[in-house]
Amino acid sequence: MVAVKDADFSNVDAVFCCLPHGTTQEIIKGLPNNLRIVDLSADFRLRDVGEYEEWYGQPHKAQDLQKEAVYGLTEISRREIKNARLVANPGCYPTSIQLPLIPLIKAKLIEVRNIIIDSKSGVSGAGRGAKEANLYTEIAEGIHSYGITKHRHVPEIEQGLSDAANSEVNVSFTPHLMPMSRGMQSTIYVEMAPGVSIQDLYQHLSSFYENEEFVTLLKKNEVPHTRHVRGSNYCFMNVFPDRIPGRAIIISVIDNLVKGASGQALQNLNLMVGNPENTGLLYMPLFP
Amino acid sequence: MVAVKDADFSNVDAVFCCLPHGTTQEIIKGLPNNLRIVDLSADFRLRDVGEYEEWYGQPHKAQDLQKEAVYGLTEISRREIKNARLVANPGCYPTSIQLPLIPLIKAKLIEVRNIIIDSKSGVSGAGRGAKEANLYTEIAEGIHSYGITKHRHVPEIEQGLSDAANSEVNVSFTPHLMPMSRGMQSTIYVEMAPGVSIQDLYQHLSSFYENEEFVTLLKKNEVPHTRHVRGSNYCFMNVFPDRIPGRAIIISVIDNLVKGASGQALQNLNLMVGNPENTGLLYMPLFP
Amino acid sequence: MVAVKDADFSNVDAVFCCLPHGTTQEIIKGLPNNLRIVDLSADFRLRDVGEYEEWYGQPHKAQDLQKEAVYGLTEISRREIKNARLVANPGCYPTSIQLPLIPLIKAKLIEVRNIIIDSKSGVSGAGRGAKEANLYTEIAEGIHSYGITKHRHVPEIEQGLSDAANSEVNVSFTPHLMPMSRGMQSTIYVEMAPGVSIQDLYQHLSSFYENEEFVTLLKKNEVPHTRHVRGSNYCFMNVFPDRIPGRAIIISVIDNLVKGASGQALQNLNLMVGNPENTGLLYMPLFP
Amino acid sequence: MVAVKDADFSNVDAVFCCLPHGTTQEIIKGLPNNLRIVDLSADFRLRDVGEYEEWYGQPHKAQDLQKEAVYGLTEISRREIKNARLVANPGCYPTSIQLPLIPLIKAKLIEVRNIIIDSKSGVSGAGRGAKEANLYTEIAEGIHSYGITKHRHVPEIEQGLSDAANSEVNVSFTPHLMPMSRGMQSTIYVEMAPGVSIQDLYQHLSSFYENEEFVTLLKKNEVPHTRHVRGSNYCFMNVFPDRIPGRAIIISVIDNLVKGASGQALQNLNLMVGNPENTGLLYMPLFP
Repeated sequence: MVAVKDADFSNVDAVFCCLPHGTTQEIIKGLPNNLRIVDLSADFRLRDVGEYEEWYGQPHKAQDLQKEAVYGLTEISRREIKNARLVANPGCYPTSIQLPLIPLIKAKLIEVRNIIIDSKSGVSGAGRGAKEANLYTEIAEGIHSYGITKHRHVPEIEQGLSDAANSEVNVSFTPHLMPMSRGMQSTIYVEMAPGVSIQDLYQHLSSFYENEEFVTLLKKNEVPHTRHVRGSNYCFMNVFPDRIPGRAIIISVIDNLVKGASGQALQNLNLMVGNPENTGLLYMPLFP
Repeated sequence: MVAVKDADFSNVDAVFCCLPHGTTQEIIKGLPNNLRIVDLSADFRLRDVGEYEEWYGQPHKAQDLQKEAVYGLTEISRREIKNARLVANPGCYPTSIQLPLIPLIKAKLIEVRNIIIDSKSGVSGAGRGAKEANLYTEIAEGIHSYGITKHRHVPEIEQGLSDAANSEVNVSFTPHLMPMSRGMQSTIYVEMAPGVSIQDLYQHLSSFYENEEFVTLLKKNEVPHTRHVRGSNYCFMNVFPDRIPGRAIIISVIDNLVKGASGQALQNLNLMVGNPENTGLLYMPLFP
Repeated sequence: MVAVKDADFSNVDAVFCCLPHGTTQEIIKGLPNNLRIVDLSADFRLRDVGEYEEWYGQPHKAQDLQKEAVYGLTEISRREIKNARLVANPGCYPTSIQLPLIPLIKAKLIEVRNIIIDSKSGVSGAGRGAKEANLYTEIAEGIHSYGITKHRHVPEIEQGLSDAANSEVNVSFTPHLMPMSRGMQSTIYVEMAPGVSIQDLYQHLSSFYENEEFVTLLKKNEVPHTRHVRGSNYCFMNVFPDRIPGRAIIISVIDNLVKGASGQALQNLNLMVGNPENTGLLYMPLFP
Repeated sequence: MVAVKDADFSNVDAVFCCLPHGTTQEIIKGLPNNLRIVDLSADFRLRDVGEYEEWYGQPHKAQDLQKEAVYGLTEISRREIKNARLVANPGCYPTSIQLPLIPLIKAKLIEVRNIIIDSKSGVSGAGRGAKEANLYTEIAEGIHSYGITKHRHVPEIEQGLSDAANSEVNVSFTPHLMPMSRGMQSTIYVEMAPGVSIQDLYQHLSSFYENEEFVTLLKKNEVPHTRHVRGSNYCFMNVFPDRIPGRAIIISVIDNLVKGASGQALQNLNLMVGNPENTGLLYMPLFP
């Protein structure tokens, strides 16, 4: 923190802030007013500071800044991000979930009740801290759920979906830890609105993301694999009819460390400083 | 097949039949009438031969035998298995799904509409055939869904749940392929019946499986991991409250090659011939 | 330690001691004289206390006990172990290396100069401590050497081989960390003694281990795989001709947590108390 | 092949040839004389067609072309490659082995007798063919040696080392299959020439590769990890003193699919057509 205090930002337009959750609020308060910031922590993601305090267990230390923070889901809020001083970069699960759901909810194509989200993440989402639970021997060749309905990304997901619905949305969200380093899949089970078909969902997502470089609706029936986006900033998604009439299954995959973290942060910063949005992001997926 | 024809079964009471799906019906027809059989294929699992033909794409070749086949979910149909001549050993997904759901449906504690099943399986479920899709390089460090709502285990799951409900049940079932050899988890999202609480589900499963050696309801809040049953015949399960009021999340884990295949087959055969049910099955889980 | 002090050993014949390296010496000193002990730590493996202090960086705290400690490589020192009060259970690498080399050195079939040992171990060999280096993300999908020629198992290996040779032996030993939980392979490159053939090595190992339950020389040309001994107390080995005339390649595999640790400890304890040597050890390898 | 015959190469300077071993010779014979080619197969790697026929079990079908083929180890034969019409792109093992050994042998710093090479490769080296041996379930969580001293890369390695030594060199070469998709390590055990020290080896490699972008001698004592070059065209190497006086341990790592295959091919083609050598090759390693 001393280092940050003494740093000379006079020739700097914009910075990333990559500090642990809970430490960013105070540090950003101390930065020059004209410095533009993409914050990778969760510190400014929740508009409601009361909700922040409930889920993160500590008081919010920069409530004034919170008011001007823009939630940085690039394809959804491009204009606001372009002009923002402070961008709260989204979490990995919320990115994979909101990218397909927000357009469908805004267009009233799906019901907002009983949205069931079953997400699967690689271990790198847990960071590089030395915890027994993340040792190779604990993770390899096995899976389990964790933070069932209580993961800290819940309020972030619900904030985005509630905004899109213009009403309060509560979701069922169960993350699972996978024996792999990178990659995230969200399998989302929804009810379609009356009279809506799978084809309608497909068409809407198709036109919504038509001109997007990093979000791709796959061809019909093509199943997204996390390995097809590994190491890249892409989000691949698709929609499938359910066996139960009136229901749909939505699948989206990202690399949790790229589109789910630093890749989207760079995409946002490019947008803020006027770079082509894909600058530094043209890495192809690495397979195998 | 010649080998089977010429075999001398005169001193044999019971056999396993471990042949590929679709080849068993004819072979079993040719076996002596008094020989008792546990069939590990899918050939006799579906009571309705029309349904068999629809999902397996070929006519049923032993319709008379089908009538006497008993579906071998040990803890659910112990008495019928004990006296059966022909046991159709259950599939891996159906085992992991029906063990928690059948008792809850029979007791009318959960609704049978909108049951959402998100299952995850190790690759060994696909057998040992040389397919590009199952190469190490295709599977490691990535996940994907497959057979979305169209997996052949759907009618088997629905048959068991419909029997329990005494009405036709359709489920949403999406299997996922995991980068691991063994292990299977089913994460099941259900609505509780009016007035029913998580505590009621827990209590009912607890007393239902109280005296079972191989099915264990974990302590409250304890999360089942597939690695905790690896190499063993155990099924671990638990129930969790959902964030959406009135809903519950049920998780069960098995080793797909043991309780989901040969382990349950041996358990059934033990039962049929009067051995202690756990004979040959006392392998502890192997962790790590 | 208080717990150990207060324990009542009056009805106990023999115990395992599973404490961290460096803590066992003092504890065992405090145990009743008639209690027989298999110590799984490295504390009593090196006969020369000076060497212990050099490699482990601390003074030996039970030098009297050291004198009566028997190095517990079961198949090599069965008689001594049977009568020992204190057995120092061998390390995993030394077990995999000494089992093939000691009989060949004793029979003067191989030279003791320039023995090159390239070993590969699963991560569980590093224990369950929460270290960044052993996180899933650090280990999966990559390999590296470590402790090159300086691993603490070097003096233990050299002690055994020097005893067999009746002269001082120095070896080249490079361990490698594998992206797997269990399993250990040692690939050993040796010069055969003048006039000796691969066939001679094969014959000698074959007759030496002929009646052993847990050490198996595979059929000619059959390659040992670590996965073929996973979860079991077996050591599989074989010998191969090298392309360079006069040289041989010896390969042995074990499960580092079983024959390389607790399995061999139980085998030794069985021997000490008069149980059949395989009591509790009849687990088949788990594959896949 | 029809496709190749009918192709219009009139505006093409250079091509990659990515066909299976054994099929390339005839195809390249049919290509226009002025077309420059980097062949990724093994078809033109061995200068001695007799040796080709011995190791690959079939007659050489383009013996004239063989005479002009240049073995494409970029950093070793840059000048010849620049002017070559036909470049035989090296195998993955030979690349990882020759890069450190050729400079040391040329400078007479190591002995050429008794070079022991213990190599470890990811499964992608075996290609994408559907073989049971390469299924996830056969590979995960286990290791084994294969092709012991008989792998087809042996003559390719020996050809390069013999050229460097100006005398016939035979090596001991044992490849091992690792449970990972990409990555290759060669651990090489050598005798230093009389009077030579580790420091001499280090200095020589350091100055030899000083200006190379893709070959890096690490800092002293730093251990190369395959994961540090994953997805990149880098070769990292280092030298370590052995415990046995006069001996050294040399370690090199590459990504077998990049520097060990298509990356080096592109590097060679860049060189041939006058591009900057790193064109298209500036991918950073992907970790984790």
